[in-house]
Amino acid sequence: MSPLTRRLLVIGADAAGMSAASQARRRQSPDRLEIVAFDRGNFASYSACGIPFYVGGQVDDLESLVVRTPDVFRDKYSIQVHLGHEAVEVDLDKGAVLVDDRVNARRRWEGFDDLMVATGATPVRPSLPGVDSAGVFGVQTLDDGVALRSYVRAQKPTRAVIVGGGYIGLEMAEALCALGVETHLVDVADQPMNTLDPDMGALVAGALEEFGTVLHLGQEVVRFETGAGGRVAGVVTAEDTIPAELVVLGLGIRPNSALAESAGIRIGPSGAVAVDRRMRTSHEAVWAAGDCAEKRHRVSDRPVAVALGTHANKEGRVAGINLGGGYATFPGVIGTAVTKVGPLEVARTGLGELEAAQAGFVADGVVSESTTRAGYYPGAASIVTKLLHERETGRLLGAQIVGGPGSAKRIDVFAAALWNEMTVADIAGMDLSYAPPFSPTLDPVTITARKAAQA
Amino acid sequence: MSPLTRRLLVIGADAAGMSAASQARRRQSPDRLEIVAFDRGNFASYSACGIPFYVGGQVDDLESLVVRTPDVFRDKYSIQVHLGHEAVEVDLDKGAVLVDDRVNARRRWEGFDDLMVATGATPVRPSLPGVDSAGVFGVQTLDDGVALRSYVRAQKPTRAVIVGGGYIGLEMAEALCALGVETHLVDVADQPMNTLDPDMGALVAGALEEFGTVLHLGQEVVRFETGAGGRVAGVVTAEDTIPAELVVLGLGIRPNSALAESAGIRIGPSGAVAVDRRMRTSHEAVWAAGDCAEKRHRVSDRPVAVALGTHANKEGRVAGINLGGGYATFPGVIGTAVTKVGPLEVARTGLGELEAAQAGFVADGVVSESTTRAGYYPGAASIVTKLLHERETGRLLGAQIVGGPGSAKRIDVFAAALWNEMTVADIAGMDLSYAPPFSPTLDPVTITARKAAQA
Repeated sequence: MSPLTRRLLVIGADAAGMSAASQARRRQSPDRLEIVAFDRGNFASYSACGIPFYVGGQVDDLESLVVRTPDVFRDKYSIQVHLGHEAVEVDLDKGAVLVDDRVNARRRWEGFDDLMVATGATPVRPSLPGVDSAGVFGVQTLDDGVALRSYVRAQKPTRAVIVGGGYIGLEMAEALCALGVETHLVDVADQPMNTLDPDMGALVAGALEEFGTVLHLGQEVVRFETGAGGRVAGVVTAEDTIPAELVVLGLGIRPNSALAESAGIRIGPSGAVAVDRRMRTSHEAVWAAGDCAEKRHRVSDRPVAVALGTHANKEGRVAGINLGGGYATFPGVIGTAVTKVGPLEVARTGLGELEAAQAGFVADGVVSESTTRAGYYPGAASIVTKLLHERETGRLLGAQIVGGPGSAKRIDVFAAALWNEMTVADIAGMDLSYAPPFSPTLDPVTITARKAAQA
Repeated sequence: MSPLTRRLLVIGADAAGMSAASQARRRQSPDRLEIVAFDRGNFASYSACGIPFYVGGQVDDLESLVVRTPDVFRDKYSIQVHLGHEAVEVDLDKGAVLVDDRVNARRRWEGFDDLMVATGATPVRPSLPGVDSAGVFGVQTLDDGVALRSYVRAQKPTRAVIVGGGYIGLEMAEALCALGVETHLVDVADQPMNTLDPDMGALVAGALEEFGTVLHLGQEVVRFETGAGGRVAGVVTAEDTIPAELVVLGLGIRPNSALAESAGIRIGPSGAVAVDRRMRTSHEAVWAAGDCAEKRHRVSDRPVAVALGTHANKEGRVAGINLGGGYATFPGVIGTAVTKVGPLEVARTGLGELEAAQAGFVADGVVSESTTRAGYYPGAASIVTKLLHERETGRLLGAQIVGGPGSAKRIDVFAAALWNEMTVADIAGMDLSYAPPFSPTLDPVTITARKAAQA
């Protein structure tokens, strides 16, 4: 390699890191830019969001969750991916990363000209007694998913407790119920899905119970009981002890920003690595993207940490274009999310009531119920839509949807409306598609926006 | 009634007319405003778009297509609805409408202070020999639907020919195939669905054949053969004679503007009644809405005639608010439409290639194929998306989608983007919902917009 060759070192070989690497490669040939990626796990470039479905068995083939293998990156993109290699220290003055090669059990310094930090996030583990018992799982990496599925198959637990009723918690509850495991869900809040307003979250509770989840709401976990062989035996709350041979933590995730922080890179108020619009950190040669990187919320105008593959992909691409000598910016997020709870579809975008108040908005909420298709058309299902708008201006601030098949993707219309700072009156006037198999004469989006405009 | 009571006369008691009447009533009590509606048909306030599904038997209950009966309008809204009454002449100087009461076989003049014209549209009947044979049906009103269904049940035709491959034609083809009728479809174009670009229309042809429709494309009908008892016996094109005991015309619709025109009300270039943004016609006391009223296309900035229940509902509401003393405007349309062809979902919004050129745009088209869900998630179906954008600015001009279950409603995201005059680059940056059961990591909307932005 010529001495003019620059070296891009990527920490974390999943969506953000490998999108960045691929984009940089598109713009710079191997003789101009060497690209090396390290990941502490055993997989590169996979769909973490598919893990609950892999555990539940809807998706049976582990390989299908892997978008590209290290071989493909090497052969097609001339990108070297080293799995089982953990970056343990960054020295910005030296321009080098200390890498712990677990495969060969040795450490070495790897130099870089540019550094891409894509270290992801880790499930929150509360520091409670017994949390380190065997059988207590967090679910974030594909390795976590493999470990959990193996445990379920080998230990055949008859009772499981999910701690936390967020996206991962709900998806895992469904997966475990489908496997015939008696599944309990504990949440400190009075409703699952605290990313929804309580009235919308209440609709989700029923769906969880319908496929057999036993809910323990408004209960805080105080410790985990450990049984024979150091294995978890139960979850103890202030009110109750729930026996369990398997515990899944669904308490959210925390950005893996410690490595960057200890190198002196600025961490934002959200706890994630602070970046500018081009995804550059406080150090000129260091870039960050994905779950470890902070995002700007376009509605609240606040920095947030959100772990989602779709953001990781987009941010990684932006970083990679810039690393390759191009120009791109990441426009921020608005908190759009979607999940499935049995047959119930759940989606949200923008701000909820509490978030809106915290951001200083005075807002009004409106809820309406409609059907996913014309009422007379076979398969029409109920859809409940909630909109939050600024009282003074009518500007949309957020939307939440809970309903039957065909409901959830309507959230993207509200996402587009939020993106363009539309008022609810303007949304009600939009020309949305109508035919009996797809919506009532007025789409639920229109109906709810009209109701909000009249409120 | 006091002499101060005004009288609103509504011609046409379907979506537009009755939305207007209901909104006017909300704002004006019966002692301030008398409201009388006349309709030449036998039903008020029904879903015309549901007719193909009624004929096909997916919807079995005729009543379920009727949103509100005249009794409900009378009892709940104090609105008098007279069915079987055709308005045959409007005298603007006298402020009266000559009504042909078919029930009692007599004519009378009905006075008005304000007149709401909601006369709808009629299927185009080509003036070809034999077009008036028994068994040649247009499908627009619920009466048409009842007549067609009765004919099918009584005559049990074994072969049917659909003339025209638009929305109604395709839906009727599916309905008749489902009933076991051998169904042929003739279209003068080389592809069905001329509201799609030809490359996208080609995808629809396959779906039609899959459920048994025999296609005769690129063929113009020259006459209809009449057989025993004046019944249709076949459809003759330049190339072929296709025997048939039933013919359904799907050649589009024509706005029913003749009544208004003969009264001296201005008709627009589209052939529909010209209206201002408040839905007022060229005569101060006369308003129009729905299929008979002209609309402004927001992308081409041209007047258009579009027959669609969702517009009729919105326009009627706008007219009714204004008639009731309020203020509302109709913001125009962008040509959003959706339909189902067997399991294939088909949707479009904005301008197609030809329309864009006619409107003076220099545009580029981009097509991409993706999946409706994460590729590894059960039920993931193929979705083909085409975007048209202005070459110079990147502004989105139109979108078309053809794909499996879960595809079509994504058109509404493009509709929202068009509404806000977004560029394809901006669309690619939007925060759309992602979870494996609902989309790949990047939604097909994002993927296609990104590809267009790079084109």
